Amino acid sequence: MTVSVGILGATGAVGQRFIQLLDGHPTFEIDALTASESSAGKPYREAAKWRANTPIPRDVAEIEVGKTHPDAVGDDIDLLFSSLPSGVASEVEPKFLEAGYVVSSNSSNDRMAEDVPLTIPEINPDHLDLIEVQRDNRGWDGALIKNPNCSTITMVPTLAALDEGFGIERADVTTLQAVSGAGYSGVTSMEIIDNAIPHIGGEENKMETESRKLLGEFDGAELSMHDAEVNASCNRIPTLDGHLESVFVDLADDPSPAAAREALESFPGIDLPSAPDQLIHVFGDDQPDRPQPRLDRNRDNGMAISAGGVSETPSGLKYNCLAHNTLRGAAGASLLNGELLVEEGWI
Amino acid sequence: MTVSVGILGATGAVGQRFIQLLDGHPTFEIDALTASESSAGKPYREAAKWRANTPIPRDVAEIEVGKTHPDAVGDDIDLLFSSLPSGVASEVEPKFLEAGYVVSSNSSNDRMAEDVPLTIPEINPDHLDLIEVQRDNRGWDGALIKNPNCSTITMVPTLAALDEGFGIERADVTTLQAVSGAGYSGVTSMEIIDNAIPHIGGEENKMETESRKLLGEFDGAELSMHDAEVNASCNRIPTLDGHLESVFVDLADDPSPAAAREALESFPGIDLPSAPDQLIHVFGDDQPDRPQPRLDRNRDNGMAISAGGVSETPSGLKYNCLAHNTLRGAAGASLLNGELLVEEGWI
Amino acid sequence: MTVSVGILGATGAVGQRFIQLLDGHPTFEIDALTASESSAGKPYREAAKWRANTPIPRDVAEIEVGKTHPDAVGDDIDLLFSSLPSGVASEVEPKFLEAGYVVSSNSSNDRMAEDVPLTIPEINPDHLDLIEVQRDNRGWDGALIKNPNCSTITMVPTLAALDEGFGIERADVTTLQAVSGAGYSGVTSMEIIDNAIPHIGGEENKMETESRKLLGEFDGAELSMHDAEVNASCNRIPTLDGHLESVFVDLADDPSPAAAREALESFPGIDLPSAPDQLIHVFGDDQPDRPQPRLDRNRDNGMAISAGGVSETPSGLKYNCLAHNTLRGAAGASLLNGELLVEEGWI
Amino acid sequence: MTVSVGILGATGAVGQRFIQLLDGHPTFEIDALTASESSAGKPYREAAKWRANTPIPRDVAEIEVGKTHPDAVGDDIDLLFSSLPSGVASEVEPKFLEAGYVVSSNSSNDRMAEDVPLTIPEINPDHLDLIEVQRDNRGWDGALIKNPNCSTITMVPTLAALDEGFGIERADVTTLQAVSGAGYSGVTSMEIIDNAIPHIGGEENKMETESRKLLGEFDGAELSMHDAEVNASCNRIPTLDGHLESVFVDLADDPSPAAAREALESFPGIDLPSAPDQLIHVFGDDQPDRPQPRLDRNRDNGMAISAGGVSETPSGLKYNCLAHNTLRGAAGASLLNGELLVEEGWI
Repeated sequence: MTVSVGILGATGAVGQRFIQLLDGHPTFEIDALTASESSAGKPYREAAKWRANTPIPRDVAEIEVGKTHPDAVGDDIDLLFSSLPSGVASEVEPKFLEAGYVVSSNSSNDRMAEDVPLTIPEINPDHLDLIEVQRDNRGWDGALIKNPNCSTITMVPTLAALDEGFGIERADVTTLQAVSGAGYSGVTSMEIIDNAIPHIGGEENKMETESRKLLGEFDGAELSMHDAEVNASCNRIPTLDGHLESVFVDLADDPSPAAAREALESFPGIDLPSAPDQLIHVFGDDQPDRPQPRLDRNRDNGMAISAGGVSETPSGLKYNCLAHNTLRGAAGASLLNGELLVEEGWI
Repeated sequence: MTVSVGILGATGAVGQRFIQLLDGHPTFEIDALTASESSAGKPYREAAKWRANTPIPRDVAEIEVGKTHPDAVGDDIDLLFSSLPSGVASEVEPKFLEAGYVVSSNSSNDRMAEDVPLTIPEINPDHLDLIEVQRDNRGWDGALIKNPNCSTITMVPTLAALDEGFGIERADVTTLQAVSGAGYSGVTSMEIIDNAIPHIGGEENKMETESRKLLGEFDGAELSMHDAEVNASCNRIPTLDGHLESVFVDLADDPSPAAAREALESFPGIDLPSAPDQLIHVFGDDQPDRPQPRLDRNRDNGMAISAGGVSETPSGLKYNCLAHNTLRGAAGASLLNGELLVEEGWI
Repeated sequence: MTVSVGILGATGAVGQRFIQLLDGHPTFEIDALTASESSAGKPYREAAKWRANTPIPRDVAEIEVGKTHPDAVGDDIDLLFSSLPSGVASEVEPKFLEAGYVVSSNSSNDRMAEDVPLTIPEINPDHLDLIEVQRDNRGWDGALIKNPNCSTITMVPTLAALDEGFGIERADVTTLQAVSGAGYSGVTSMEIIDNAIPHIGGEENKMETESRKLLGEFDGAELSMHDAEVNASCNRIPTLDGHLESVFVDLADDPSPAAAREALESFPGIDLPSAPDQLIHVFGDDQPDRPQPRLDRNRDNGMAISAGGVSETPSGLKYNCLAHNTLRGAAGASLLNGELLVEEGWI
Repeated sequence: MTVSVGILGATGAVGQRFIQLLDGHPTFEIDALTASESSAGKPYREAAKWRANTPIPRDVAEIEVGKTHPDAVGDDIDLLFSSLPSGVASEVEPKFLEAGYVVSSNSSNDRMAEDVPLTIPEINPDHLDLIEVQRDNRGWDGALIKNPNCSTITMVPTLAALDEGFGIERADVTTLQAVSGAGYSGVTSMEIIDNAIPHIGGEENKMETESRKLLGEFDGAELSMHDAEVNASCNRIPTLDGHLESVFVDLADDPSPAAAREALESFPGIDLPSAPDQLIHVFGDDQPDRPQPRLDRNRDNGMAISAGGVSETPSGLKYNCLAHNTLRGAAGASLLNGELLVEEGWI
């Protein structure tokens, strides 16, 4: 079985990551690429300022880029990935949905909408059924699924694993985020060399709300947010890729660090082509200086979560977690959601 | 009035900072420098591998370095600064104390001893009277005073300011620490370029315990630790100088961010030669991306604390703080304690 | 005597440096600031996104920014500094010259024009008399003087010093340039962290031609280029400020390294308010790892040139040189030219 | 056919690279590992502080590390790789040679000895016959072959390609070298963040002499150095891996840049398991900002040379070149020499 996919916003940084990740994919085949009007009509190799250190896959290089509009995308496309700037996405994505397309989107608009599934396949695959609610509400035949923000994705698997066994009541998280999270030109070298920036616009709110939606319960009709308190402080540091996060959690039960490590390590993965066998890898007390962004971000093709430094506090636990922000945290997240849509029969 | 001072461990990184800071000091005059045996007998300019980007003060360059032993230091020295490795300091400092010297030490040994004042002059100058207890206990004529760890110093002034008005119940702090905190050769470039390290040996424990001692109460006989819960997660990032810290605090009262900013800004400074007029500078909502290490570490000759990003959480507040780790956080901290000893009449 | 000065393009990175450098200047007083139309009419503190780590000088903060047009600048301005983008400068500077203003410009347009003095005050102050030729040619009352590119300024003082005694025949120079040379947003962090870029658009040609003009002879009527061969290879590295350059020179005479060091060290400075007493500082064989950008860029307020590693090759000499690229290499260069114009009576 | 190999100094940075490179090698099998006395007797996984981001190959992890002495290495070892510090190597390597071993060494001692082949397989495989001279001179049955320094290896393939067609008369080279070239702890973060260092001890002399030996002619009895003038200036920059070098060459003939690019691109590779098909990849005028260390160092598993920026100068050409310093420039260089020894029948 071959799934015909298209990429909306294919020339941007995340768009390029989609193309890298889809190269050699067992079932997905790129058949459409869209970008802004100035790129439309050009072959992809001309339209994109390609920045990866692997060449553009040969067949993709020659695809003619279309406008980001349903008219420019063939009817035979089964699935669209979107990595448009959120301002553009909030205008354009609805047009594709009204035209009946299934869209797996990394853009931040509508993530918190009540009828839009915000999904990490290993965490809340059942939220996908929100699509029925969405279709009822919106009156379209398409389906919109979102993945969370990169900083959220890094932490939520660890919260989910601890919540299951011990009940998360509160999480105070501080992030050390890589510059690639801001896009290719988002952070200038004058800003970040020999420095750190204690602010990423909108990021803290995303972590605080998206986490509770991801961990929330869907009863078939309505989604209720998890009632844990989540407080985030987000920082940019001079690292290229990989978000490192320090988490303090209050738990209903008080597990030993060993029990917490076991809960993290044994949290089940999912059987999808791009998913790692084991979702969370935990470094023990013998490696207290791990995970580190440069050493651990590429584990399992950048799709695994790493954790470490698990230890007790008077109120619960503290630990670190890490993921590759543009792989597991962005393009890989949408791709995995696309694979889940296929697996669950929505495509 | 001139105070004759000596520096124990004068060739190391913090020792060099002492010499820089004492250059042009209104009352302190360097009259003795000590180092390891291999340096003893050499003029300072030969003994030290000088790494600052200002030259060695001319008169200091010619001082003959002595061994780190009371016999090698003149009787006329009023005050000793110590920045020895803690292993060495725990053996050597007692010898100086038994010989009757007053020692203001940055070394980490004995900071948590019940009869050793751990002091930041603006925060707990009254703890100095522990010296009486210390003399009783130890039977020496000298006096030992310690300053806290650099990461502790960065945060505690902000906790003290909030505690006074609103009552600190808990603090979860995550640090983003500069490489200079580990000494000149402490962090290799292979470890830290394009990376971050979620572990600094012993640092979290120091922050968790020293903070509570600094904020504790001394009744003239005994020091009781503050009963707040303090949880720390310490990280090294690729920044040269300046520790940035994210703090989540639970408070007995619930101040507005504006009230909290006011409490921080108006926290009184102290009238000592090296102290800033205003201890804590707070960036408001119009500058959410401050403080930053490179832009703010040198405020008031590196002796001021900066804060920003003050905002509400369900349990209290979150904010960032920053200080220069080798100035306010190390050599400058001991120097300020030395000035306090003079001011309070201990010298 | 007070000289009334204005800054064209006052909100940009170099414009901000002008304002920093002019703060406290003994004779120059800022009386006019211009910027693009969108900034016109606003006080400077609102118009500029101020990025220095010192605050805007109080009186400058309130100056109303005007349009970059002669009509918006008072007649009483004696001297204008220009740091406009070269595309804008090539259109706008002539209007000011026709209106009779004296302009000391850092912009790269017209640097190689036959009747425009390209000047480093210590190197070729006599070229200033090209202004007479310029006025004849152009029919204006104003005067335009240019300073060279930052990478050129770093090297040319060393070439001039060696040329005088030993005759430069060829120089092969490779630069390691700081990111600030490209402006605040010129180099993204994704481009330069853990990397280097062997290309800076137009830079090699600037070094190759500007150097020969600076070292050329002016006979009162015509300027002839120095006939040395100059070959440049320009690279960007992950350093904030300070260009480091490796130079191989072929010389007519073959001086010993000691003689070459002596020629560099003794090259005369100039008596201007912002000029260093000694132009070139040379590190000897005992400090083979100097000059280094971070340690040496701020020497003499960033206005001195440093050199080191002087040694023999079969064809001549090799050595390194370094200067602060936005101080001595840009704003400070124009300022110094302005001071020269006053000293020489052109203002 | 299986070749049984051992690694002298297997726990160091280059030793670890050998182990990584040999994992999955078609013919070489690791059967012996040596290290200092303190490691002897331990399994490799305990003896080495493993720093790569891939795990220790399983079978290697359990090998018992021996002392670096012939007695501790089995007679059945066909080939030894050496990456010992040169001080140690100069004492120890002769013992292995006298015991009859064939040693492919990355250590810098004896590289310039008249009877020791200094070899890059694609450049001067015929120099291998110096082994006969060596055996005559030294009276041993073993064979010692050296590879050049990492900075030399990056440049010499480009010089060889140009020399063949156009005759190299002089090369002025400036390097921008990565920190990994100094070993894991060789460059501290305090030295190199926001900085560059214009000195690497002994490096310039290595480039100047090794290059001329590599390009020299061996007439079966004696090796004569190439008579080109080679001048090197070596700099360390804040980059993890990959040396970038700017080269100015004077040539007997004056090729166009296009002809020079063609000569570089078409320079023949060699048919060895770890050799790239094409030795030198050249970026054209459409990519003037390449090669870059981070983007190009891993080409062909880090074994290819990249070049770019080829353009004319009055005296010849200038261009940049780049290679991975610990792969093609160190462990990979020795490995390739080992493969050549097998291919040529010396093993």
